[in-house]
Amino acid sequence: MRDVAVIGIGITKFGELWWQNLRELYVEAALKAIKDAGVDHLDSMYVGCMTSGLFCAQEHLGSLMADYLGQKHLPAYRIESACASGGLAFRLGYIEVASGMSDIVLVGGVEKMLTGADATFALASAADQEYEAFHGNTFPGLYAMIAKAHMTKYGTTREQMAAVAVKSHDNGSKNPNAQFPLKISKEMVLNATPVADPLGLFDCSPVSDGAAAVILCPVELAKKYTDTIIKVIGSGAATSTIALHQRDDITFLDAVYQAGKRAYEVAGLKPEDIDFAEVHDCFTIAEICCIEALGFCEVGQGGPFSEAGNTALDGKVPINTSGGLKSKGHPVGATGVAQIVELVEQLRGSAGERQVKNAKRGLAQNMGGSGGSSVVHILEVQ
Amino acid sequence: MRDVAVIGIGITKFGELWWQNLRELYVEAALKAIKDAGVDHLDSMYVGCMTSGLFCAQEHLGSLMADYLGQKHLPAYRIESACASGGLAFRLGYIEVASGMSDIVLVGGVEKMLTGADATFALASAADQEYEAFHGNTFPGLYAMIAKAHMTKYGTTREQMAAVAVKSHDNGSKNPNAQFPLKISKEMVLNATPVADPLGLFDCSPVSDGAAAVILCPVELAKKYTDTIIKVIGSGAATSTIALHQRDDITFLDAVYQAGKRAYEVAGLKPEDIDFAEVHDCFTIAEICCIEALGFCEVGQGGPFSEAGNTALDGKVPINTSGGLKSKGHPVGATGVAQIVELVEQLRGSAGERQVKNAKRGLAQNMGGSGGSSVVHILEVQ
Repeated sequence: MRDVAVIGIGITKFGELWWQNLRELYVEAALKAIKDAGVDHLDSMYVGCMTSGLFCAQEHLGSLMADYLGQKHLPAYRIESACASGGLAFRLGYIEVASGMSDIVLVGGVEKMLTGADATFALASAADQEYEAFHGNTFPGLYAMIAKAHMTKYGTTREQMAAVAVKSHDNGSKNPNAQFPLKISKEMVLNATPVADPLGLFDCSPVSDGAAAVILCPVELAKKYTDTIIKVIGSGAATSTIALHQRDDITFLDAVYQAGKRAYEVAGLKPEDIDFAEVHDCFTIAEICCIEALGFCEVGQGGPFSEAGNTALDGKVPINTSGGLKSKGHPVGATGVAQIVELVEQLRGSAGERQVKNAKRGLAQNMGGSGGSSVVHILEVQ
Repeated sequence: MRDVAVIGIGITKFGELWWQNLRELYVEAALKAIKDAGVDHLDSMYVGCMTSGLFCAQEHLGSLMADYLGQKHLPAYRIESACASGGLAFRLGYIEVASGMSDIVLVGGVEKMLTGADATFALASAADQEYEAFHGNTFPGLYAMIAKAHMTKYGTTREQMAAVAVKSHDNGSKNPNAQFPLKISKEMVLNATPVADPLGLFDCSPVSDGAAAVILCPVELAKKYTDTIIKVIGSGAATSTIALHQRDDITFLDAVYQAGKRAYEVAGLKPEDIDFAEVHDCFTIAEICCIEALGFCEVGQGGPFSEAGNTALDGKVPINTSGGLKSKGHPVGATGVAQIVELVEQLRGSAGERQVKNAKRGLAQNMGGSGGSSVVHILEVQ
């Protein structure tokens, strides 16, 4: 397999973008990535998107996006794995370049969620429809159960979860593309409108429109386009049971653990070798569970670890420097690709006010549903 | 890239399967393929499915299907390209094995269309929602326009289109898994209830439930499992404009042409080297356009070519020996994989009454929407 580099990135503003439809969002991000990379053609394209069918009554996104990008005849694929759609699209683009099948591959992710469709119903299609969603459970409900179990088993507190949100908004306030680029206080989180006990409004990522895109090519070819080679040094993907009630322990995200383990093995690295990470904080408790499963702290200690400032921009391992899903926004199909965009910004040293010092290796972890699927990538600047 | 073989196949009955849900259909086909291959583990899995969101309010199919297949932690991807979802899932499974990333990969396709959901609305999400579907066009309407244009430009007749349906049902009557395993007459086609002029009921493929699955592995490893090595010798994918009104010529399926051209190039073959083919006959006119774009006859001559018996089981190039989408049924996400299953049956010499004599090389062509995407594979028995 060939070594693969990321040579271009593009992202839209995340938020309530009523004036842009699905295809416009995708094409904006894709054109930015193409321009950033400086490539004059594409060999193949991947579109990560969760549920454009339920939000926009539109499937067949490979054809649609290649068409509106002016790339008729381009082989194009739409990849879906709920909120991990973007991350898995990136993994498949990586495999295609690594295989030798294609040289220049665009991977984009997009979701248009503000369409008038019922977002809670659409998002519930990431859960087990017949055993969870049909009976009335929703994503805040599922993560609330994880939070309750984590609090019971490990003594995790609402204050610790609030610290996650405060930190992410601190970072997001420095990200011009963030949906909510504003600082919040612990008191605001604790006193916010309850959504699903123990989670309040500020424990939850928002409903967002947005898109992100990256360009991949072999490392050898990358040297033609840039002096800053950002190489994909690890990739791992895994699934778990789609329904929470089938898990051995709902506080431990085993798909995240497995995906991380595989990516670390490919890279020949350990968690302590990672300088910073973007993780899938769809809820504050999710960030806590993810950093545990990825080995950034001990299992059960994600709450105190976060509260002590270890995940802050100047902490031991900065987490979600972009603002994360919480502050940056969470257009679900775009999120996994947007995480890669943030890794590249940091590794290029172009992250502005939110730049991590000496950022040489970053990890991106994207997750579907309540942890039914996950994918981890590790990128390194050469 | 490594050479890749298909070592296992599985398929469900196609039809109105009210007693089986989405996951049960997929798992039935997958378990049959695993048993047929004789493998004791999987490294990765692809699920081709078009619109389980609109039909079943269920996305996140990689996690769901890995879970219900008892394959927790398996990397799993859902691939969507409207009715070409299964064929593109096969292509990505092929790339993953060829790359060296994985050895044993399951590729399955599934669609549960009989759920009470509005099939016409759901299928229209394969068209351009904002420029075609929203204005009331449907798939029979789009293909009726193609048929009208083909009749006008080339003199194609309703009788010629009827000959396609009669031939496909002849083949399908020999396929125990077909939804409509019954012979029909030209008069039945011509006198059937009109759907969208000039297409009648027997010009249209049905709405179906079903699933199909195959197992891929490197050719070198395949020798451990079977003496009959069936190798993937060509693969090509392409897109075109999603909307008909953007095409240069709506009678010519350029995505099919491009995908075929690329697959022939990889295989080092020409159309005349192909012994038989499964093509995407969602409507009778579609089969005519597909065999033209694939070079089995001259452009514009698909009608007379079919009427003269060239595409029959004992003709020059047997087309849709399985019965095709028309008689076998068309659970859209399953169709592309089911085509591969038929190729393998023929190449193994196990197709029973519908066996093509001296079948050494088969071609499968799967298509999304009105030709907005297409994928072609060529398989050869070694």
